[in-house]
Amino acid sequence: MKQSELFSKTSKTFPSDEEAVNAKYLIKGGFVQKMSAGVYSFLPLGLRVLDKIKNIIREEMNAIGAEELLMQSLVAKEYWEKSGRWHTNVAYEFKSPFGEEFALGWTHEEVISAIAKHFINSYQDLPKAVYQIQTKFRAEQRAKNGLLRGREFLMKDLYSFHTDKENLEEYYQKVIKAYQKIFKRLSLKVKLTEAAGGAFTKEYTHEFQLLHPTGEDTIFYCNKCEYSQNKEIAVVQKGVQCPTCGSGEIQESAGIEVANVFKLGTRYSEAFNLRYAKPDGSQELIVMGSYGIGPSRIMGALVEVYNDERGIIWPKSIAPYQAHLIEIKGKGVESRARKIYKNLKEAGVEVLYDDRDVSAGQKFADADLLGIPWRAVVSEKTGDQIELKARDSQTAKLVNLEELLKKIK
Amino acid sequence: MKQSELFSKTSKTFPSDEEAVNAKYLIKGGFVQKMSAGVYSFLPLGLRVLDKIKNIIREEMNAIGAEELLMQSLVAKEYWEKSGRWHTNVAYEFKSPFGEEFALGWTHEEVISAIAKHFINSYQDLPKAVYQIQTKFRAEQRAKNGLLRGREFLMKDLYSFHTDKENLEEYYQKVIKAYQKIFKRLSLKVKLTEAAGGAFTKEYTHEFQLLHPTGEDTIFYCNKCEYSQNKEIAVVQKGVQCPTCGSGEIQESAGIEVANVFKLGTRYSEAFNLRYAKPDGSQELIVMGSYGIGPSRIMGALVEVYNDERGIIWPKSIAPYQAHLIEIKGKGVESRARKIYKNLKEAGVEVLYDDRDVSAGQKFADADLLGIPWRAVVSEKTGDQIELKARDSQTAKLVNLEELLKKIK
Repeated sequence: MKQSELFSKTSKTFPSDEEAVNAKYLIKGGFVQKMSAGVYSFLPLGLRVLDKIKNIIREEMNAIGAEELLMQSLVAKEYWEKSGRWHTNVAYEFKSPFGEEFALGWTHEEVISAIAKHFINSYQDLPKAVYQIQTKFRAEQRAKNGLLRGREFLMKDLYSFHTDKENLEEYYQKVIKAYQKIFKRLSLKVKLTEAAGGAFTKEYTHEFQLLHPTGEDTIFYCNKCEYSQNKEIAVVQKGVQCPTCGSGEIQESAGIEVANVFKLGTRYSEAFNLRYAKPDGSQELIVMGSYGIGPSRIMGALVEVYNDERGIIWPKSIAPYQAHLIEIKGKGVESRARKIYKNLKEAGVEVLYDDRDVSAGQKFADADLLGIPWRAVVSEKTGDQIELKARDSQTAKLVNLEELLKKIK
Repeated sequence: MKQSELFSKTSKTFPSDEEAVNAKYLIKGGFVQKMSAGVYSFLPLGLRVLDKIKNIIREEMNAIGAEELLMQSLVAKEYWEKSGRWHTNVAYEFKSPFGEEFALGWTHEEVISAIAKHFINSYQDLPKAVYQIQTKFRAEQRAKNGLLRGREFLMKDLYSFHTDKENLEEYYQKVIKAYQKIFKRLSLKVKLTEAAGGAFTKEYTHEFQLLHPTGEDTIFYCNKCEYSQNKEIAVVQKGVQCPTCGSGEIQESAGIEVANVFKLGTRYSEAFNLRYAKPDGSQELIVMGSYGIGPSRIMGALVEVYNDERGIIWPKSIAPYQAHLIEIKGKGVESRARKIYKNLKEAGVEVLYDDRDVSAGQKFADADLLGIPWRAVVSEKTGDQIELKARDSQTAKLVNLEELLKKIK
């Protein structure tokens, strides 16, 4: 992509109405645009990042045998009434001009239970798991922290169906492992943390918490073992001995909840009379699980973790482009830069080519702001070579085209 | 995919509350599920079709230099007020628990104009084109015809920005050509038809009309030349001489509007004061176009066109799978079928493998209902060979694995 043709542009200044680092950098860089409080549009650069996050999640969901589908956003009142979740404090509810009442989908346990009723009848149909990646709507009183807490955001929600608690437990652990793979691929270090179930279940659940000062949750965790609890259920305090391993000391940190897993049990299958026939013909309630992960929130969290005073530092797996080719105007430079751009594209490298008619200083500043992993500079000074620098490194190196391709690919 | 593991199942009966062929077959086959009037969820099989339609559209949009982005669905009142489209009769409007008023995005001229204001300042920034593929919401009084007229549906909407009408006209023709390519790839014969602009523009516009009895529009077209007009603006009647070519005779037909293109002119740039600086420094209003195409409506239209009394007949380009491998229980059949399944997958063929423990009759009936282009049967009778039949053909043929792969790929 030629940067001169890119729809978005970087801004000279930070947005005046945002405090969170993720929103400031993402808006300044032209990744997202704020449309109203807690509501963002994803510009081409931002959508590229979002799609990469989605695809990593999708691959790991498919790998644990989950099938993708797409449920509706206009969820009629009758669905919520069955589960007792009409008039919650997080839903946008409204009446249509023709009298039907809807809540915009903020979660889909009700809908998937109604759908599953058509297809799951027997123990032979179980277990099953389906997921969707979809825009969700939540009426947050105070939308804040940019993409970390929006009123409209992207969510991957997975639902699983089982004959019994043991079978659910097995899949629950599988999903936890899949989530751990996802966060590894996203370069995010998360803590699996015990928490309360909120509006979803009365059982304890698990959250994936990214320890970070901007987080809204408070986490107590052990500095030696895996023990970690959300403050809302925690039985320990900072500084005490770990109740699990006995040798570690409990630490306190703010955390960004980037995913969660719920053992729903039979709460929704009861509400929707979702049953299966056992081998002996008797009818039994289906045991369910639900598992959420937020691609747009993750995009914000990545920026919170990976940045410096000059801009974003995208991990390679989700960077909008792998290489940022920068042409510094000078004699013979343009034709060389164009050739390298062509070579990179032909080699399958995702490259943003800064062919704009602006100063070298602005090009470098924008490259740092956009945070593409590799910066490749072509100028009169570099001769037949290319000055290659990683975004997270201070040192540049002159390389030839072959070395460039080898490094970047 | 093994059919025994598929989340959805075929139904024995048609849904009782649907009249349109597309809804009847898509629900019976387990492609979609009706959630309320005009609101459908896409099950795994249906999502596969939808994704293929989306990808064809995406490729052709990218080919004409349009960049993909993703706008919000919660569109605040202020956007609509600027253009005079608050309180239209198609929008779902509501007040949030915290007092903000929104209309769910049913089109995005307002939003894209507000976004473009940040990035288009000079003639050097023009022309530009951006698109999204997104769920849209329209408060239809009578949702009907299954996926042909929904209250929640998928839309690809493209917006273009130009210095003047001539430049818009050039891109408008480019989009028409891109749409013609899309419909060719989708195996849909459409008529480019002149129509009124409705809520979008006062100028005449063009619709892509699929001539079909279930269509809600009435089209007058020439049987010799390209002349075609929507009844709402037509100056001719059935049977008269064509005013354009003079030799053809005007025909009348119902039509399904599967896409449309609008020359918006300066209506929205005026409302949002969207201007660019000319080379001489003077400020000029930007000239805009918008272009819609409905992937979910197209899915419905495809079923309306491609079906017989036994079920759907998907065109290859958008079929959920290319091959339907059917194992008829018998001695040695299972191991042979499994091997063929493995071989097909390894060869990159998308294959649905009917390994279910049901009768041959039901398997054949389901294969006809699901409409996958190639049916490959393995039974005791076929020996080392495979009985291959195209869904749209009456004759089957015995082939070996090599021939099978050659045919299907």
